[in-house]
Amino acid sequence: MFDFKILNTDGEARYASMKVDDKQVETPMFMPVATKAAVKTLTSEELEELGVQGLISNMYHLLLKPGIEVIENAGGLHQFMNWDGLIFTDSGGFQMIRSDFESKVTPEGVTFSSDMDGKTYEITPEKCIEMQKRIGSDVAMCLDYCPPYPADRGELEKSVIRTKEWAERCRKEGEHIFGISQGGTISELREKSCKDIVDLEFEGNAIGGLSIGEPTELMYGNTEISTSIFPKDKPRYFMGLGSPVDILECIDRGVDIFDSAYPTRNARHRTIFTSNGKIRIDKSDFKDDQSPIDPNCECPTCKNYTRSYIHHLCKAEEMSWMRLASLHNLKFMMDLMSEGRKAIKEGRFETYKDDFIERYKKG
Amino acid sequence: MFDFKILNTDGEARYASMKVDDKQVETPMFMPVATKAAVKTLTSEELEELGVQGLISNMYHLLLKPGIEVIENAGGLHQFMNWDGLIFTDSGGFQMIRSDFESKVTPEGVTFSSDMDGKTYEITPEKCIEMQKRIGSDVAMCLDYCPPYPADRGELEKSVIRTKEWAERCRKEGEHIFGISQGGTISELREKSCKDIVDLEFEGNAIGGLSIGEPTELMYGNTEISTSIFPKDKPRYFMGLGSPVDILECIDRGVDIFDSAYPTRNARHRTIFTSNGKIRIDKSDFKDDQSPIDPNCECPTCKNYTRSYIHHLCKAEEMSWMRLASLHNLKFMMDLMSEGRKAIKEGRFETYKDDFIERYKKG
Repeated sequence: MFDFKILNTDGEARYASMKVDDKQVETPMFMPVATKAAVKTLTSEELEELGVQGLISNMYHLLLKPGIEVIENAGGLHQFMNWDGLIFTDSGGFQMIRSDFESKVTPEGVTFSSDMDGKTYEITPEKCIEMQKRIGSDVAMCLDYCPPYPADRGELEKSVIRTKEWAERCRKEGEHIFGISQGGTISELREKSCKDIVDLEFEGNAIGGLSIGEPTELMYGNTEISTSIFPKDKPRYFMGLGSPVDILECIDRGVDIFDSAYPTRNARHRTIFTSNGKIRIDKSDFKDDQSPIDPNCECPTCKNYTRSYIHHLCKAEEMSWMRLASLHNLKFMMDLMSEGRKAIKEGRFETYKDDFIERYKKG
Repeated sequence: MFDFKILNTDGEARYASMKVDDKQVETPMFMPVATKAAVKTLTSEELEELGVQGLISNMYHLLLKPGIEVIENAGGLHQFMNWDGLIFTDSGGFQMIRSDFESKVTPEGVTFSSDMDGKTYEITPEKCIEMQKRIGSDVAMCLDYCPPYPADRGELEKSVIRTKEWAERCRKEGEHIFGISQGGTISELREKSCKDIVDLEFEGNAIGGLSIGEPTELMYGNTEISTSIFPKDKPRYFMGLGSPVDILECIDRGVDIFDSAYPTRNARHRTIFTSNGKIRIDKSDFKDDQSPIDPNCECPTCKNYTRSYIHHLCKAEEMSWMRLASLHNLKFMMDLMSEGRKAIKEGRFETYKDDFIERYKKG
């Protein structure tokens, strides 16, 4: 069962409910990445407490470690990680092509050798979906072909064709699958790829191959192209977008779902989100700062610890700082999204977005 | 206010209640180490949930980072770390002498230079206690002089004399201070040092300079010497002892308090305690093991995760394994102690100890 119901719109922004079998979430939604079946430094119980609705894991990484069978034996990813919420899985096509392993892309799929086990893996679109299903993914992502940025037109044209061909083969593998568009930042190619994907009537449509280094305006522009083509009654997912400002801008352009390692990676690099912008908690300004990171934040870090203490943990290389900062940054994203949903519902998303961005950028 | 009340004895083992101002604990008690104002990978909330009654932090480390003033500004260690339980602080004499910094021991105290800030620190016994008090320690430990193992007789004799002289000076600095005996494994010297310390009538008496590499039998023997000299009506603290078997053997010889990084350090090195002995969770035996580490354990790790999942986290270098394993190992220690207290109360400590050790060593 897959159901996507728009509850309110505000301009292009949409507040919706998405149901996948027995799992229901509200969008706009941000998913932390649990690449290897774990959100770095955190537990599933903590994610639940933060209000995280869904995670995205990565088939490619799980294939290498622990292997599909281990997760099957555990009863699937949900049981393995003790996570009751929604689980998207990415095909890992992006990672396969960029991996240190020798990889080869053919019309048939992607072949690569792992130096972990010496094996050669041949990932066809069919196998890719099948494996995502086997590990118990709620929503599987198509195998796509994403060239790096910048890529020449020829490479992008090839990626659009290949991504379409692979998507057609993925589609035959069942339901609860999202298609992914490519096309880089070349409008006609992006348009073409979006139409290709839409034609296949996946449960949802994703934007791939953006937020990989292109100028922000090109990213926004190609997002607009995508959402103007993606049908209104299906969820739209911008893969790999994680900065608060970009997310609000893309909600404003009609995107519903986001994922990124950005909040947790920033946390591990000592960078913490606040409504007045990012702060580097290891800066000496915070040495004696007895306030929480954000007095209005309800995260376990802000309820229990001061900036001074977290500063000390960083300086002393006590790695619990990574947890505390990750908890806060993820809660910040959860609040950003729930405030966003509320603003859409109340028809004031534009003001919410503008106010947030002004404060955040000034900081 | 300092109160130590023995509630039950069983042979030499004692079940007691210890009150330090408004903080009450039960002994035998094991304290995790929060060397730099944090138990590695864990939060204070987790420690409380595990039933941890007290922690030991290290004045020497805190002096270097974040500095005494930062902790004072935060309102003391309890506020700084958000920890309501008991806090012992060690002088850090042990670490000062062994540090990479150039250090010099004179009758006056210990002098060392830190390459962190280029400063030279002169730690006298008086300053050492004063600083522990300033950071809000509940129980301060004397500055002692602990030679390495093995040390020759001359060195040990010198350490006994110096430790006594320093203890006399510490005693003048106030109350809620434990003395520390030295003497290595030479019975007469150990005896002499214990008597020196006892004469100064500290609130508690500690065994120092053991569990640093000497044969187990010598450690047990010198523990017996110590507890035969230490008065019955005061708490006895074996510093730095952390293996479950050794702790039970020393409770059986009349020791009340223990601390060590052993459980958390083992956890970070992928070694997990079970009633059937230690296991290396990264061994391939556990790859598909769907049981918790210990089905009878009530720790968050055992309630939520399988051996298979923790094995995967280790293999995938997902550092949350360190937390999960640390939580379990510390809960194991807490259970060991509460079961021990119960066994003393019920007059069956010997059986409890023997059964535990037999099972643990067989595993």
